Amino acid sequence: MPPTEPPTEPTTEPVVDFRTRPDRYRHWKLDVDGEVAYLRLDVAEDGGLVPGYELKMNSYDLGVDIELYDATQRLRFEHPEVRAVVVTSAKDRNFCAGANIRMLAQSSHPWKVNFCKFTNETRNGIEDATANSGQTYLAAVNGTAAGGGYELALACDKILLIDDNSSSVSLPEVPLLGVLPGTGGLTRVTDKRRVRKDRADVFATKSEGVRGKQAVEWKFVDEVIPKRSWDETIAQRAAEAAAGSKRPTDARGVELPDLEPQRSDTEIRYRHVRATLDREQRQVEITVLGPDGDVPDTVERVHELGADFWPLAMTRELDDLILWLRANELELGTWIIRTKGDVEDALAFERVIEQYSGEDWLVNEIRHYFKRVLKRLDVTSRSLIALIEPGSCFAGALLELALACDRQYMLDGTLDDENSEQGDEAQLVLSASNFGTFPMSNGLSRLGSRFYGDDDYTAKLRQETSRRILAVEALDMGLVTDAPDDIDWEDEVRIMLEERASLSPDALTGMEANHRFVGPETMESRIFSRLTAWQNWIFVRPNASGPNGALRRYGTGKRADFDRKRV
Amino acid sequence: MPPTEPPTEPTTEPVVDFRTRPDRYRHWKLDVDGEVAYLRLDVAEDGGLVPGYELKMNSYDLGVDIELYDATQRLRFEHPEVRAVVVTSAKDRNFCAGANIRMLAQSSHPWKVNFCKFTNETRNGIEDATANSGQTYLAAVNGTAAGGGYELALACDKILLIDDNSSSVSLPEVPLLGVLPGTGGLTRVTDKRRVRKDRADVFATKSEGVRGKQAVEWKFVDEVIPKRSWDETIAQRAAEAAAGSKRPTDARGVELPDLEPQRSDTEIRYRHVRATLDREQRQVEITVLGPDGDVPDTVERVHELGADFWPLAMTRELDDLILWLRANELELGTWIIRTKGDVEDALAFERVIEQYSGEDWLVNEIRHYFKRVLKRLDVTSRSLIALIEPGSCFAGALLELALACDRQYMLDGTLDDENSEQGDEAQLVLSASNFGTFPMSNGLSRLGSRFYGDDDYTAKLRQETSRRILAVEALDMGLVTDAPDDIDWEDEVRIMLEERASLSPDALTGMEANHRFVGPETMESRIFSRLTAWQNWIFVRPNASGPNGALRRYGTGKRADFDRKRV
Repeated sequence: MPPTEPPTEPTTEPVVDFRTRPDRYRHWKLDVDGEVAYLRLDVAEDGGLVPGYELKMNSYDLGVDIELYDATQRLRFEHPEVRAVVVTSAKDRNFCAGANIRMLAQSSHPWKVNFCKFTNETRNGIEDATANSGQTYLAAVNGTAAGGGYELALACDKILLIDDNSSSVSLPEVPLLGVLPGTGGLTRVTDKRRVRKDRADVFATKSEGVRGKQAVEWKFVDEVIPKRSWDETIAQRAAEAAAGSKRPTDARGVELPDLEPQRSDTEIRYRHVRATLDREQRQVEITVLGPDGDVPDTVERVHELGADFWPLAMTRELDDLILWLRANELELGTWIIRTKGDVEDALAFERVIEQYSGEDWLVNEIRHYFKRVLKRLDVTSRSLIALIEPGSCFAGALLELALACDRQYMLDGTLDDENSEQGDEAQLVLSASNFGTFPMSNGLSRLGSRFYGDDDYTAKLRQETSRRILAVEALDMGLVTDAPDDIDWEDEVRIMLEERASLSPDALTGMEANHRFVGPETMESRIFSRLTAWQNWIFVRPNASGPNGALRRYGTGKRADFDRKRV
Repeated sequence: MPPTEPPTEPTTEPVVDFRTRPDRYRHWKLDVDGEVAYLRLDVAEDGGLVPGYELKMNSYDLGVDIELYDATQRLRFEHPEVRAVVVTSAKDRNFCAGANIRMLAQSSHPWKVNFCKFTNETRNGIEDATANSGQTYLAAVNGTAAGGGYELALACDKILLIDDNSSSVSLPEVPLLGVLPGTGGLTRVTDKRRVRKDRADVFATKSEGVRGKQAVEWKFVDEVIPKRSWDETIAQRAAEAAAGSKRPTDARGVELPDLEPQRSDTEIRYRHVRATLDREQRQVEITVLGPDGDVPDTVERVHELGADFWPLAMTRELDDLILWLRANELELGTWIIRTKGDVEDALAFERVIEQYSGEDWLVNEIRHYFKRVLKRLDVTSRSLIALIEPGSCFAGALLELALACDRQYMLDGTLDDENSEQGDEAQLVLSASNFGTFPMSNGLSRLGSRFYGDDDYTAKLRQETSRRILAVEALDMGLVTDAPDDIDWEDEVRIMLEERASLSPDALTGMEANHRFVGPETMESRIFSRLTAWQNWIFVRPNASGPNGALRRYGTGKRADFDRKRV
């Protein structure tokens, strides 16, 4: 018999704002000490984002992770001097108990899934900082790390565990909660730390985890450090990690001021990014505005502009908008993506990125930040449709926005409206940025994904950079899905959007998650495929989330009542 | 609010027997015409495996697919002369309408999942025959191929579509049923046929599909053939495919006689494979018996023995047992795998395989068949535990059975029981077979998976072949999970099994699906990860399977009532 979950779930979840800053943190303490930063988890028990649970034992909810994400971003932009980041706990004997179980048990399915997605993105971001930013994260596990706590450590480059005869690392989700570790644990244990699958199996079915010598021998941690030499050894390991960094020693950080979007029920406006919310059609129209003002001609000027430098300002706004819409606007299932601005200006800004990202830390950060925001789009469970119209500036880096979409529609001809001047046709421009500057999580560029298996063609496209490509040619080159003329445009787009909105939201999520990632998988992409898809399945199964399921029964003293059928 | 699906579903599904043979087929016609075989789908509407639906328009259920699997096996073993296989329809204007929707709508979740798994394995087997057996499959799509019908065509090497102004290929699952194409369609369209993701998106959201020139241009089919020249062109394409085959022209096939297991409520006995069903402990004890009788010393003798040749006989029995248990014994969640026999005999048989698989078609078939059965184990949603005891013969190919398991326990010492002689210790033997003869679907050997990321160590193990490895050394070499001595053995194994049986069946399924496949993914493994895991999620969601879901509402004239939240 099919499930009888009611079609709508009562939304007890609040509106979530992802903006914060260190002086507002309730759960993390960020201390920068020269080239080493310390991120200390010190969760306020009464600081949950939603009523109904206490964040005991350094357990976390989305609010805690929003602060962690903010900290990782600020370390990259505001602290060029930081070359190693020590993630540790300010609480005695508790590193982190993972995601709060009562929070999970009371959460709706979309909330659980969205929570896991964001925490996964943040952990991937930690690895990205280590790999691409010269900020190596070390987990200084000075107490028990359970579940998501250990998964946070797994995202770090090294895991150092205190040897106090009690602190352990564990993934107790399967035995205690009947769900999977949801933030990459199973994948990182085997693929990153190279733990043998049978040992991984023993570990993930054993709630007490491992500690001491065995934890090192089985590769779950890198080093076990006696309590008496803990502080000095951690400092030493951090100094060693810092020594390998290529970050500058004399740079000044770029402050990230609060974003101040104007939000109403129908509109969200940032300086460079606008969104119109159409609840009737269940869609959002997102417009990214191209750069205004002069392009900096030196890297010094980029630093002077700082957070006002258009690529950074736009990326921050887009990031915030994506997070907002994903968390708060679940029923707006189609995102229409447009750009508006001058193509030459967009390309001029982008050339600054291409020119300096190899040598300047800030430009490098902006490049990788835009890459990560594009990756957020890739794993966003909304239908993404690019509309390429006269007056748009889908050129180079901004073209990646269109290529991230499920479909691209380009108007052939001109539109007789206020936004376009007479004779102004829609155009695309390829640039070097489209060939690997912003790889997807499967390791391919978006063009490489688009023309998967035909590397010769992708290589041929490289010779087509820096020139305007109009609609008919773009269609012919395979860069857009369709190119209706001005007579058909409005109807074709409208019908396409109506049809899209009529389809099953779940089927679209599954379909898009398959189509967007072709070919190879990496550890990162596997986390979102093999692990997350299974976890989402488990989350909707009664064995976890039913009234007698393991997640709901945890802590009640009653054991879960399982349907024993293996599926 | 979590779903409120009742913990147990009423089982309306019958016991499924996977044994059949061509003279019992109700749905397929198998005609061998020299080097070309024709497999014609001609589904008997009243021939459904379960009451409650009619198999209209060449739609299929598990029973239809059981015949297809049987046919693909017989073509490989009984028809060495067949070098190309044309899959087509015996019905006018209908190639195949895919999985029967009423069947899906009335099926329990486990049935749906198990059905999709088996059909996926059969389609992977079709690709395996094309790649490794010199039997190239061609889809002669002589009518409309929808959903699973098109997915069947996608498993073939080439897709030839009739040009009759009406026949099309389509994947209408998303728009019509609110589920995904469940047998690899999304993955094969992008990864095998290299269709651009935006076109794949258009295609999979458009119930009418594509036909004619567009179908070729967008790469959904290889060729469109006018009706008037259909038969001769198909014959020609089949002859062309056959011409490239390396299968022998003068060989005699090996008949596959009916397997005749003795089945009771507590036991299933074949000649070389035994299973004891323990319903109280919810486990199955499987014992594979090593070879008895003399080892053939020539390849001629292998052919004389035919289906009695132990590696083939044992593999057929194991295949049948796995399918039986997966379909019919859902609550027996742990499979304990043992072997029993003489190590030297097992290795002697295996040497025949290693020696001749490159040159003899039959031995090659046996090798690939055992490979496929091991892959069935890899994707089986049961906990797999190998017990390596005195008297066992986990050597070479049979050692793969242990390596496929989630854990391996090896007794250190001797057991004082009837099965072992005094002084007889458990042993393992590595052979060349363990280093790539039977790759997993991720492309790695099971040892390569086990020691993922440490190729040097795997290479070192190659120097340890052909010698007996006792428990303590096996533990030291990382080949087994634990090696309790005879005093602890019984208790340790018992407690481990009890603990396993207490865990959430769903969480185990997800965990094992992650641990068993480390590192790289291939198209085949992606079908079981990205696609199947999402599909299983969609299958349990009310938007598909709820009373107002798309799957249940299909054909009622009422539209599905969707929860519009995107997750």
